[in-house]
Amino acid sequence: MRILGIDPGYAIMGYGVIEKNGQSVVPVDFGVVETDKSLPFPDRLEKLYLGTRQLCELYHPDMAAFEELFFYHNITTAISVGSGRGVSILGVQQCGIPMYEFTPMEIKQSVCGNGHADKKQVQQMIRVLLGLKTEPKPDDAADALAAALCLAFHAGPAQEEYRIK
Amino acid sequence: MRILGIDPGYAIMGYGVIEKNGQSVVPVDFGVVETDKSLPFPDRLEKLYLGTRQLCELYHPDMAAFEELFFYHNITTAISVGSGRGVSILGVQQCGIPMYEFTPMEIKQSVCGNGHADKKQVQQMIRVLLGLKTEPKPDDAADALAAALCLAFHAGPAQEEYRIK
Repeated sequence: MRILGIDPGYAIMGYGVIEKNGQSVVPVDFGVVETDKSLPFPDRLEKLYLGTRQLCELYHPDMAAFEELFFYHNITTAISVGSGRGVSILGVQQCGIPMYEFTPMEIKQSVCGNGHADKKQVQQMIRVLLGLKTEPKPDDAADALAAALCLAFHAGPAQEEYRIK
Repeated sequence: MRILGIDPGYAIMGYGVIEKNGQSVVPVDFGVVETDKSLPFPDRLEKLYLGTRQLCELYHPDMAAFEELFFYHNITTAISVGSGRGVSILGVQQCGIPMYEFTPMEIKQSVCGNGHADKKQVQQMIRVLLGLKTEPKPDDAADALAAALCLAFHAGPAQEEYRIK
């Protein structure tokens, strides 16, 4: 079973693809889609959308896990990041892939056994769980891998609770 | 010159299409794209995206005006409405149409000469300006027509200040 993890955003969107076979989980690819701030906002959204679709068409994931956007003090930022989330969800939707969403705390709990783990602990656990030689970089790619791992650990009937609905 | 106005949202997106010829402005079409709350959120986003693209392909607007999302107390709502805004912007972007955005106050100022006009006053002014027999309904369609009118009144060099960037 192949899982695409996504850490949504409009300046930088992290992605991570993992393959789960029984108890084994291996990394397939991870990285980021960046949109330059010199680009007009609609062009940035289009790049995120096309980037997300390309990931789905390249890796054919069976399901996708999003990190839930959480607590923005600045409402303008929330609307912009929400716009980025919208086009990423659309890109996955148009490839017919079911989507799930987890809060940062749920992801940390799942990956580290501690919902309040710090960024460094999460990165170390991702490295160990995926058998990587070094911690995955940048942070957005690591967060996307963590979201994918979280879905892998919830795979089965329990996952439906987290379906984006 | 044909202008598409959009009042973004994820449950209901208002649209209004107007044609400006010199000083004359006439209505072409207005209405809403609604997404049923029983649908999963990704399907709702897809419906909004396809609906926006269809409007662009049907009416071939030269430019589009969005009402800016404004002041949501609830951050979850802001992210959901932002997601809807994102896919609507993407739909217009993919048809190669330049986009502009105005705050509700700018729109009221432009249509009524008063940035604090109430909903009823705005609807009456739209009716008069577009030569409609009755006030346009529902509110979301009226707001979209008002956004389109606002862009029509700013048409020319002044409009660039409002470009979505």
